[in-house]
Amino acid sequence: MPFADPHHDAAELDFLEDFRQMSAFGATDGGGVDREAATPADHATREWFAGRMRDQGLTVGADGIGNLFGTCEFVPDAPFLMMGSHLDSQPMAGKYDGAYGVLAAAHAAARLRAAVEAGTLRPTMNLCVVDWFNEEGSRFGPSMMGSGVYTGVLDRRTALATADRAGVTVAEALGRGPEFPPAELPTPAAYAEIHVEQGRELEDARIPAGLVDRTWGARKFRITVRGEQSHTGAALMADRRDALFGASLIVVAVRRLCARFGHDELRTAVSTLELAPNSPVTIAREVTFQADLRSPDEDVLDAAAELLVEACREAEQEASVVVEQDLTHSWGQLAYSTDGVALARKAAEDLELPHMEVMTVAGHDSTNMKDLVPTVMLFVPSVDGLSHNEAEYTRDEDLLRGVDLLTEVGRRILAGELT
Amino acid sequence: MPFADPHHDAAELDFLEDFRQMSAFGATDGGGVDREAATPADHATREWFAGRMRDQGLTVGADGIGNLFGTCEFVPDAPFLMMGSHLDSQPMAGKYDGAYGVLAAAHAAARLRAAVEAGTLRPTMNLCVVDWFNEEGSRFGPSMMGSGVYTGVLDRRTALATADRAGVTVAEALGRGPEFPPAELPTPAAYAEIHVEQGRELEDARIPAGLVDRTWGARKFRITVRGEQSHTGAALMADRRDALFGASLIVVAVRRLCARFGHDELRTAVSTLELAPNSPVTIAREVTFQADLRSPDEDVLDAAAELLVEACREAEQEASVVVEQDLTHSWGQLAYSTDGVALARKAAEDLELPHMEVMTVAGHDSTNMKDLVPTVMLFVPSVDGLSHNEAEYTRDEDLLRGVDLLTEVGRRILAGELT
Repeated sequence: MPFADPHHDAAELDFLEDFRQMSAFGATDGGGVDREAATPADHATREWFAGRMRDQGLTVGADGIGNLFGTCEFVPDAPFLMMGSHLDSQPMAGKYDGAYGVLAAAHAAARLRAAVEAGTLRPTMNLCVVDWFNEEGSRFGPSMMGSGVYTGVLDRRTALATADRAGVTVAEALGRGPEFPPAELPTPAAYAEIHVEQGRELEDARIPAGLVDRTWGARKFRITVRGEQSHTGAALMADRRDALFGASLIVVAVRRLCARFGHDELRTAVSTLELAPNSPVTIAREVTFQADLRSPDEDVLDAAAELLVEACREAEQEASVVVEQDLTHSWGQLAYSTDGVALARKAAEDLELPHMEVMTVAGHDSTNMKDLVPTVMLFVPSVDGLSHNEAEYTRDEDLLRGVDLLTEVGRRILAGELT
Repeated sequence: MPFADPHHDAAELDFLEDFRQMSAFGATDGGGVDREAATPADHATREWFAGRMRDQGLTVGADGIGNLFGTCEFVPDAPFLMMGSHLDSQPMAGKYDGAYGVLAAAHAAARLRAAVEAGTLRPTMNLCVVDWFNEEGSRFGPSMMGSGVYTGVLDRRTALATADRAGVTVAEALGRGPEFPPAELPTPAAYAEIHVEQGRELEDARIPAGLVDRTWGARKFRITVRGEQSHTGAALMADRRDALFGASLIVVAVRRLCARFGHDELRTAVSTLELAPNSPVTIAREVTFQADLRSPDEDVLDAAAELLVEACREAEQEASVVVEQDLTHSWGQLAYSTDGVALARKAAEDLELPHMEVMTVAGHDSTNMKDLVPTVMLFVPSVDGLSHNEAEYTRDEDLLRGVDLLTEVGRRILAGELT
């Protein structure tokens, strides 16, 4: 099948129609979706998706943390090639992030099953499609919750007891959704995931397939600025210990850190920020926020973290506040399976699909899975690299080429090429 | 009665005991109170206070926006000297702010009534103690809600329909509190209020009585920074339009404005700040906050407001965001009744109480009342000027001297000296 064929076959039309239907759940006016984990919109998406998996002959079930599986047994007692991603989204986010990979996995699975039934593929293992619960972590922290519990890096009970801002726990929120049959946990042999790039390296290079070989490193800090509550007008300026002023000095410094390093050697941001008491005419006594530093180079990360400490000391001086810094996440440059990358390269060559190796800056469920089994992580281009944004966009052609690539990767893994 | 008399008489002990009892409602571990308008703690305080007013022979009733009145009729159909302040507080705030003035008014009223009954005071008007509903405006905006509706600057229905962050309206929140008999609205002839200073001018000068003659000017802005939601790691730095970065640049600039003017010519702060979507791993698309500029000098305010506009333009450039500035409040240096100040001076001289004229930086219910009737506003010292803070503190001696002064001011007004 040539790369730029404008004529879609039936399977392709089927995929695009399914994607259109799926994107209606939690649809926003701006063309995106808003379906944080275990909200009614997420539940509705999952129920619809379970139905589509059943239509395709998969056996549907869920585990004790809301991971949704669709399995197909070819070889009794053999382990599984798992393929999937996540259906949940950030608030007011794009419709491709995660959801594309889950639907692509289901369609790839249907094609692979058809190939097995037609006798053109001799599987050495079984097949499982998965929607990992709560990858985003926007409603319930931490992110990658479902794959974290599945791979054993998170405790299931702790995860179930995690509450959102309204005090609703994961267990309660899952209980309000559709009831799926309990699934026997599939034993994994390999994992494959496809995702929109979220950057614009592929798009800028006009390459339709990214083979993820490594992750960027990251240091994430929870920063707490403690000042003193007082009146915004009556308090003398010299007496003030304004936690919001202190926090703002640090937010500015975090961003300006990037200028101290070479082009795109460092990316930084502050995301969540909370004030106490956040009341009019009252200066904040405490502000907490999350600061992320990311780099492909661990030396850069170390240097940036030191500069951040300096910036916190300077804010303490200027705003008369006390700043606490807690390192909450830290990882270096992590490699994906080189055999997996080699297999993905062969698959892309087979399909005559232009491809390149890329790093992922964002975390994915595959970040957890790659520590357990040989893992292939694929990217399709994302126009302008817009992510966590309603305007996130990937062209249909690129979506379809991605399903083809994931199918070919799956075919080779099922055939035993990765073990 | 000499100024520093350590021996309290029965009335003084009674006041301090009442103040102790009242401060138990909504008491915080840090020695303050937390009783935002129409919360259970505010309701409990008001119910207790209504009982104390009844004990003192006042007729208790409330109007349609929750202002609580205790009236005493001496002269049929005559208008009222009203005295009061507010019982509600900011979150985690001091126990003196507002509540001291309400209790002082009730005790002054009891003494004045006794004087009338003893025949030593011939009143030309009636007497009304008032707890103005929701002065702080922290739960339901705007501040000075009760006195605003009473004086006609706020619409009652709009105020009743105002919701807090949980969606509870003023009408609903008031409905959950004690039911007071409906009050006939007292027609005012004059108003007197006593309050802790919230600054430290009196304390630094060791003067126990402040006679408020003017307000500082103020400009308050609601600032909205619009950026674009994106991924904290995956988005290229050059592509980012980070609303929180833009907002932080402005918060820093607002504070640093003060250095551009002479000592204490300008006070500035940012109080409430909200992010959307405030989600981990997601850059904020929009941040809104409240910026306050205050000065005794209107030229300084105008110059500071211009510099703020410049700072917003600079933030737009550096953060690639769009900044909107709405002027929500603006007032100049406003005068209190000069006759009222002269009357208060005579009262202080009578009591041999060292006194000085002061300006108020903060707004008060008297700010509304002074536009309606001759108004006397009094301050007692506040140690270190701590305000909107659990550690707010005024010495018992100063509280008691304040009640004496308010009583003497009330005696003179009742006797007809201000009309």
